[in-house]
Amino acid sequence: MNDCTKMVFKLFSWRDQSESKDFGYKVHGHPLSTNTRRVLATLYEKGIGYEAIEVDLKSGEHKKEPFLRNLNPFGQIPVFEDGQVKLIESRAITQYIAYVHSTRGNRLLNFQSHETMATLTMWMEIEAQSFNPLASALTWEQVIKPNYNLPRDEGAVKENESRLEKVLDVYERRLAETGYEYLACDSFTLADLHHLPNIEFLYLTPTRRLFEERPRVAQWVAKIRARPSWQRACDPAVWSSNIKKRLN
Amino acid sequence: MNDCTKMVFKLFSWRDQSESKDFGYKVHGHPLSTNTRRVLATLYEKGIGYEAIEVDLKSGEHKKEPFLRNLNPFGQIPVFEDGQVKLIESRAITQYIAYVHSTRGNRLLNFQSHETMATLTMWMEIEAQSFNPLASALTWEQVIKPNYNLPRDEGAVKENESRLEKVLDVYERRLAETGYEYLACDSFTLADLHHLPNIEFLYLTPTRRLFEERPRVAQWVAKIRARPSWQRACDPAVWSSNIKKRLN
Repeated sequence: MNDCTKMVFKLFSWRDQSESKDFGYKVHGHPLSTNTRRVLATLYEKGIGYEAIEVDLKSGEHKKEPFLRNLNPFGQIPVFEDGQVKLIESRAITQYIAYVHSTRGNRLLNFQSHETMATLTMWMEIEAQSFNPLASALTWEQVIKPNYNLPRDEGAVKENESRLEKVLDVYERRLAETGYEYLACDSFTLADLHHLPNIEFLYLTPTRRLFEERPRVAQWVAKIRARPSWQRACDPAVWSSNIKKRLN
Repeated sequence: MNDCTKMVFKLFSWRDQSESKDFGYKVHGHPLSTNTRRVLATLYEKGIGYEAIEVDLKSGEHKKEPFLRNLNPFGQIPVFEDGQVKLIESRAITQYIAYVHSTRGNRLLNFQSHETMATLTMWMEIEAQSFNPLASALTWEQVIKPNYNLPRDEGAVKENESRLEKVLDVYERRLAETGYEYLACDSFTLADLHHLPNIEFLYLTPTRRLFEERPRVAQWVAKIRARPSWQRACDPAVWSSNIKKRLN
């Protein structure tokens, strides 16, 4: 292979080659953002293409006009566009995609009965209300702050880790008592997927031990992190391959 | 009226007299708990009866066995029982009730299209992710802590109020731009209802001014607080009337 062929090959291998159907969706976000990755993983699970529009977080593009007026007045990413429908809040976006495309790709929801849906909704709420506040705080202290050269608050790390341990104890018992490999039922759903973005970052920090000390939680994490959809959601090259090259 | 008649009259007027259908639901909770009230308001909107089981928060009943093992390992209220189905997380419970009884009482959800449901889900997520953390912190500092003779953190109040102002600015613009009287669409839904418990407590505090300074937000709050379902959710006598008197 000469250099030129190598370069073309590299460019080509970057392109998102899996068979995915295009519905004209747009995702305004960033490949390193936890909330963006939550939406990307859902699209990959469903085999759905999208146009990536990268928001320049460094310059604070999302905190200024025209982003605030046109995309999200709360100044957050991601923003999802489906024609005239503009959605914010990653967990609302994942639910929208999973509902609209319920029969496509992996199921992600469990419509078997009102009870199975209720259990799934409950585990999505547990993620949002009990897991996420602690996991986000720990990601903030140990991953984001060091990145901006801000001093870490050791007290906050200790306090949040101690509270996270109690939450993970409940997860460990849940997995043991049900015998399921996943939280809400015996298949992978949004309740599992919503956890992934924070877990991925926490696995770069000493907080990882809290998951690994609990055998069933550790197994669950290993299983969901290994999903191809998640691998791709964490790969900035896959994101980049979905950015539309515009002609000037 | 003699004293005895008066007493009987009082007891009788305490009883939950509205026509409500019984599906055998049980609510373990407390009439002053924000999360319990979220579930009660939903049941009243749907005209559904329930058995109230009061959890003794003062003695910490919810933080000990057998509550942790049998009802909620996270040690929180409310817990909702529908036969063998046990649900925790107030927002999951309200959604369950609203789905199962979608054609009964007030609608609370908007199934018109995927888009209307998506908008509703988005506003439920905005409540959970943007409004609730600030409103809960302000309730904690100004209502709960004084009740336990704990010192108030003035810095936390100021910080959370300043962030809440930005959230309410978005609400004000949303209501102005859509012309709706409610957040998600032109009828009352769970997206509005989920806000009520924190708002009710914040209206007892100086934070009330942040809502009242914004005309459309103020109007929205007045409208949703005035709903009979909410009035009843805040009335401990209605709760008490649903406690089953057991024979010893």
